[in-house]
Amino acid sequence: MTMTNPRAKARTDMRHFLCEIEDGIARVSLDRPERKNPLTFESYAEMRDWFRDLHYADDVKAVVFLPNGGNFSSGGDVHDIIGPLVKMDMKGLLAFTRMTGDLVKAIVNCGKPVIAAVDGVSVGAGAIIAMASDLRIGTPESKTAFLFTRVGLAACDMGACAILPRIIGQGRAADLLYSGRSMSGEEGERWGYFNRLTDADSLEEDAINWAKRLADGPNFGHMITKTMLAQEWSMSIEQAIEAEAQAQAICMQTGDFERAYRAFVAKEKPIFEGN
Amino acid sequence: MTMTNPRAKARTDMRHFLCEIEDGIARVSLDRPERKNPLTFESYAEMRDWFRDLHYADDVKAVVFLPNGGNFSSGGDVHDIIGPLVKMDMKGLLAFTRMTGDLVKAIVNCGKPVIAAVDGVSVGAGAIIAMASDLRIGTPESKTAFLFTRVGLAACDMGACAILPRIIGQGRAADLLYSGRSMSGEEGERWGYFNRLTDADSLEEDAINWAKRLADGPNFGHMITKTMLAQEWSMSIEQAIEAEAQAQAICMQTGDFERAYRAFVAKEKPIFEGN
Amino acid sequence: MTMTNPRAKARTDMRHFLCEIEDGIARVSLDRPERKNPLTFESYAEMRDWFRDLHYADDVKAVVFLPNGGNFSSGGDVHDIIGPLVKMDMKGLLAFTRMTGDLVKAIVNCGKPVIAAVDGVSVGAGAIIAMASDLRIGTPESKTAFLFTRVGLAACDMGACAILPRIIGQGRAADLLYSGRSMSGEEGERWGYFNRLTDADSLEEDAINWAKRLADGPNFGHMITKTMLAQEWSMSIEQAIEAEAQAQAICMQTGDFERAYRAFVAKEKPIFEGN
Repeated sequence: MTMTNPRAKARTDMRHFLCEIEDGIARVSLDRPERKNPLTFESYAEMRDWFRDLHYADDVKAVVFLPNGGNFSSGGDVHDIIGPLVKMDMKGLLAFTRMTGDLVKAIVNCGKPVIAAVDGVSVGAGAIIAMASDLRIGTPESKTAFLFTRVGLAACDMGACAILPRIIGQGRAADLLYSGRSMSGEEGERWGYFNRLTDADSLEEDAINWAKRLADGPNFGHMITKTMLAQEWSMSIEQAIEAEAQAQAICMQTGDFERAYRAFVAKEKPIFEGN
Repeated sequence: MTMTNPRAKARTDMRHFLCEIEDGIARVSLDRPERKNPLTFESYAEMRDWFRDLHYADDVKAVVFLPNGGNFSSGGDVHDIIGPLVKMDMKGLLAFTRMTGDLVKAIVNCGKPVIAAVDGVSVGAGAIIAMASDLRIGTPESKTAFLFTRVGLAACDMGACAILPRIIGQGRAADLLYSGRSMSGEEGERWGYFNRLTDADSLEEDAINWAKRLADGPNFGHMITKTMLAQEWSMSIEQAIEAEAQAQAICMQTGDFERAYRAFVAKEKPIFEGN
Repeated sequence: MTMTNPRAKARTDMRHFLCEIEDGIARVSLDRPERKNPLTFESYAEMRDWFRDLHYADDVKAVVFLPNGGNFSSGGDVHDIIGPLVKMDMKGLLAFTRMTGDLVKAIVNCGKPVIAAVDGVSVGAGAIIAMASDLRIGTPESKTAFLFTRVGLAACDMGACAILPRIIGQGRAADLLYSGRSMSGEEGERWGYFNRLTDADSLEEDAINWAKRLADGPNFGHMITKTMLAQEWSMSIEQAIEAEAQAQAICMQTGDFERAYRAFVAKEKPIFEGN
């Protein structure tokens, strides 16, 4: 018996961000380049829903989050978001911070590798989206700032105090989080935030090619890798090893494991089918 | 109704370490420069109490832990501390190790950013104080050693096996902790232990200026940032994101959030009041 | 009353890997250099048992895991391991993944510092053995790959998704784990995977000398350091500090602590006895 998947294809008819799917790669970006791509209540909610549904979509094998007009994202819009928040009651505020946190949870739980391709401004919630991605490629000119303290808040926004220290270390994260200062592309690469740097001209192509290489891999395995990278976060070593023993035993019953073996024996390149 | 705070000002009449408060910045240092500033039972206890009380002090917005006479600290004094410990019973030993651990807990929970300005010798419990600070600025000549194994002990002292790996990674931490060897200033910067290096001549000034910039920020927000950086340590990603949603919703009801918004709209620099 | 230790000496009569013990240093390596030292069901099981027993062996103070014939290990053998796994039922698969995970647990819990000396190929389960060691020294020519996705699996194998991010950071680990690509020696050193690099010619000597320096240290203390580095993995800061207070109080009642103190007072070099 086969499970019928009611959302086997990802939606692309989005109203508040751009989304194209081609050859299993979803290209996503924000769509107000004239204002450096700020987020709005609507784009937060729509992206949260899109990444949640992505978990069930079989036609997408990897996601690339791209800049638009030379900038990644300027974060929550001052007029459209901060203005209303200043007047909001606690019930409304918590609903908002949970919605933004739910976007990060949805990215983490979407089951596909997400590559952030960062150029220009990547600040506030924009920096968070890149941080919550699995992999990051940036340009030397990119400016990443977790600038929450600049708007009078704490830096604990959308998981930043938990996730950023695991990427660049507790001390470097504390510097960026307390000060809200910009991290250059070069610093980001040196600290392990960016996996690599490339020129702005080739950023999109490099990111897409990277996504294609991942998409050619064992996608069921990638989904389990992504799941476990998040799941083992707060486990003991012993718990993590047992969890991996179970997770890998599952993968050893997929066709892709056998395909790889048969290809190796036949001295061919394996062709994975994601099951 | 306003909560009356019985310790709204931090004490400065210390007997076993130096402490001055000016413009919201507390300057702290050990005070036996002729012996490279070893710790004693008395200075441990007094610093523990001072950092504990600091949580309630409204006049201090940031702390700078400075060297004295060209050295940060030589750690627990061999004659005043190790000598007595060698003869102590288990009840006394555990009381001592808990007291030293309580100093780290007090630094972590004091609610203000702590910057360690490290020059010369910073070893043993001295290295721990710098490690437990939020931010670190060092000199190229600084020597940092977690030298507990050199005195016949384990390296698990005052949180070192938990905190150091989160700053510089598990492999580099293991090297320093097993061997007790010195980490140079340059290594420390390269590994993310030091946020930056500066010359010994300008160390104090640079550290104070850094503290002033932090003190000009939203101090209620900084306190929450510091709280959450510690609090989320062993949470799952999902728990951390929910914890941040709650913590940031609190910050969105502070005056500083509104002040930043109004300043932005008026194209002015925000002046934060820490509430 | 003294506890009688039924396994006070480590075994060296191994059938599926090489093992020599000299001056308290165990030299271990795999023994099929003509095939770059793949692992088999038998060598997995025998190494798991050897590292488990090592916890009780008083004659070994440090372990060096060496390459053989210019390569560290090519991981699970395609013919001897992957072939049979492809046909195995779930009960058998879980028994296998648990056995491999048990090797990592045994290395982590063996109570002695383990140094991996990595040259040539170190891939799959070979890379895991180096990763699970406490310290790593590599050559510029070494090639480390967590290539599980290349054989159609997930990268969550033997603790990789928990341990690797703690050594090199979440972002760099994700790159290696999703892609299965090779990490060069230079990258490994820059990222904190290798503590240092050395030429292939001097690799064994450098690793042994490093092990000797550790073996000359307080071995009871080293055992506790190793225990706590693993134990505090998923503790809160507060829990970790209390755990270290207890662990260090134990160490303060060892003879090595007193020996170090007396040597210091006498201006001599301490000679540790490991108790």
